[in-house]
Amino acid sequence: MTLDAAALDAADPLADHRARFVGAESPLVYLDGNSLGRPLRATAERIRSFVEDEWGGRLIRGWDERWFELPLTLGDRLGAATLGAAPGQTAVGDSTTVLLYKLIRAAVAAHPGRREIVIDRDNFPTDRYVVEGVAAECGLTVRWLDVDPAGGVTPEVLAPALGPDTALVVVSHVAYKSGWLADIAELTRITQEAGGWILADLCHSSGVVPTDLDGWGVDLAVGCTYKYLNGGPGAPAFGYVAARHLASGAFTQPVQGWMGAADPFTMGPSYAPAEGIRRLLSGTPPILGMLGLEDMVTLLEETGVGAVRAKSVALTSYVIELVERDLPEVGIVSPRDPDRRGGHVTLSHPRMREVTAALWQRDVIPDFRNPDGLRIGLSPLSTSFAEVERGVAAIAEEIRR
Amino acid sequence: MTLDAAALDAADPLADHRARFVGAESPLVYLDGNSLGRPLRATAERIRSFVEDEWGGRLIRGWDERWFELPLTLGDRLGAATLGAAPGQTAVGDSTTVLLYKLIRAAVAAHPGRREIVIDRDNFPTDRYVVEGVAAECGLTVRWLDVDPAGGVTPEVLAPALGPDTALVVVSHVAYKSGWLADIAELTRITQEAGGWILADLCHSSGVVPTDLDGWGVDLAVGCTYKYLNGGPGAPAFGYVAARHLASGAFTQPVQGWMGAADPFTMGPSYAPAEGIRRLLSGTPPILGMLGLEDMVTLLEETGVGAVRAKSVALTSYVIELVERDLPEVGIVSPRDPDRRGGHVTLSHPRMREVTAALWQRDVIPDFRNPDGLRIGLSPLSTSFAEVERGVAAIAEEIRR
Repeated sequence: MTLDAAALDAADPLADHRARFVGAESPLVYLDGNSLGRPLRATAERIRSFVEDEWGGRLIRGWDERWFELPLTLGDRLGAATLGAAPGQTAVGDSTTVLLYKLIRAAVAAHPGRREIVIDRDNFPTDRYVVEGVAAECGLTVRWLDVDPAGGVTPEVLAPALGPDTALVVVSHVAYKSGWLADIAELTRITQEAGGWILADLCHSSGVVPTDLDGWGVDLAVGCTYKYLNGGPGAPAFGYVAARHLASGAFTQPVQGWMGAADPFTMGPSYAPAEGIRRLLSGTPPILGMLGLEDMVTLLEETGVGAVRAKSVALTSYVIELVERDLPEVGIVSPRDPDRRGGHVTLSHPRMREVTAALWQRDVIPDFRNPDGLRIGLSPLSTSFAEVERGVAAIAEEIRR
Repeated sequence: MTLDAAALDAADPLADHRARFVGAESPLVYLDGNSLGRPLRATAERIRSFVEDEWGGRLIRGWDERWFELPLTLGDRLGAATLGAAPGQTAVGDSTTVLLYKLIRAAVAAHPGRREIVIDRDNFPTDRYVVEGVAAECGLTVRWLDVDPAGGVTPEVLAPALGPDTALVVVSHVAYKSGWLADIAELTRITQEAGGWILADLCHSSGVVPTDLDGWGVDLAVGCTYKYLNGGPGAPAFGYVAARHLASGAFTQPVQGWMGAADPFTMGPSYAPAEGIRRLLSGTPPILGMLGLEDMVTLLEETGVGAVRAKSVALTSYVIELVERDLPEVGIVSPRDPDRRGGHVTLSHPRMREVTAALWQRDVIPDFRNPDGLRIGLSPLSTSFAEVERGVAAIAEEIRR
């Protein structure tokens, strides 16, 4: 691969998309698209017009006309654009944490008598904290996995933990620190062979690494929309429940609210869950927070997530090659094999905490991850190779300062 | 009181505020501000500039600079502007339903051995559904109150239900159908005398009927922000936990997420709840959804909720007097005593379902409530007496068509 950024940008079929994002013209180098994606320019104007015309103009009628169904229609579009989910299995709403809670409780309820939830020690804190909390309140045990430093959560790591007590396995598709990409298809197969369900956390993959939730047979999934789906700070998460668990009634969740009830506007005396994925909902859905996501899903529908993934691989490979050439003193925590790597690259060095602080001062924005990781998250549609080149050069300068 | 709308508008000290809202110039008559408040004009522009400058310009740095604390700083401002809550007890985030779930679970956990949750049959469905769900999962019983048709949930209605088994009483400050205003101070006193906690649902009062949560000694409260707080469709709710329950550690909640942890960015191995009201939080807070609320809190700080309440009483009294004069065949479900009435008036007539549908066709927008209620919710700062007069005249025409 050439390391000439200008040549790479010239050859990039998606290069034109960068201009659609706010800040494309800025000299700032943004290496943290996997914490918070840039807004689309269209989103700024669309939210303004939403406030004036849709909220301000349609007022309460907006619920009947569009908003009431938006968590499900947008979920279906997301399912088709990047999740590999047929309609009727995906809903948008709540935070990732709240959806994790509902989904994990659902899995426990569906497996009476099974006493264990399996999760790895390197999973994102909120996943671990929710698992701990649900296990404690339901009287289950957490079975902790130590990940393979040279492979993440592999089938070899998971298999010995599975057995007749396995209620649920919680795994991240892309590990938030290392970037290891898990083989969800195989993890699903062995989990289900043991009689448990699997919950895939797609926070670091949705919008950048395609998934095939239906094809892989995944039971439950969750993901956030403010990273590679550019929904904005605190935009609502999405949850996926396999159609078979909705059809059988096996899926129930504990936060019984009016928006997940069979007939919300009858306002009857007792809760009866809605049919289908609507039963995942609880309260009034956060419409304003869905608009940025809606714009990004439209863009993904146009470009195709396959093309986005191809550029993502090119960008992360470019980082790794630059670092190998220019920064031999820095460790590369993320896998070198692109088929095993998500959309970000983590570098390690004892001085990374102060290096990150210095970079922020000069408008080069990566993320720091305890204790010595600098994480470079590259949002493919808003990031150019030239931006990456400038970023890695700045990291080199600060490392050697 | 004169029934001359022009004279009433001319004498209204808050009349000028109407022009600050989107749609003020429209001929549409909006009688549903208690389902979804109109947006402030400032909000449309501010959200656009937020997307371009704050989200798009500050990017991930926005969390350190402002967003991380926004659920609490905005909660404190809301507490001062309308709730009667000193700082450190109010947080914004999640839906009302999710906050109800967390707060009700917290109350149950704080009262081991007590077996009952008390709630009235006329409470809003989501409150009843969450109470039912928590009671079922925790092995408690729901003690249902039949409200007094001539008083709502009064101390006389509640007292016989209280006893050594009372863990929690859930009551709405303003009843969503009838508009009865509960005497939360006295209900709190007798609930606590019996050893339980009280949870006040302020969905239909926050922003229009002042509360004195600290003064009344309320234990827990919740409310939504898209009605009289004009936060927009699905804007996040707020939760209040009395300082004494935070200081003692008595308050714990089950959805253990990273944003409620003692040190979110250490990302340590086990969850330890944050000190103070931060422990009510779970996932990443919905920042975009807080911006409209922030604008409305600023406006409430300027005008004072006392003045807003005075105009609310004048508007609802005006409706009642017009209906008494012009529509003797229509029932007035809401209390005539303004001291016992919230911010809306519900009328009853066997034909109200079709009347509401016909009114919507002519851009007069009240709400329908099963089986025969037409609910008129008047957002004081965005509603004129002339608008109310046109609305009641349209109702009269449709009733007699």
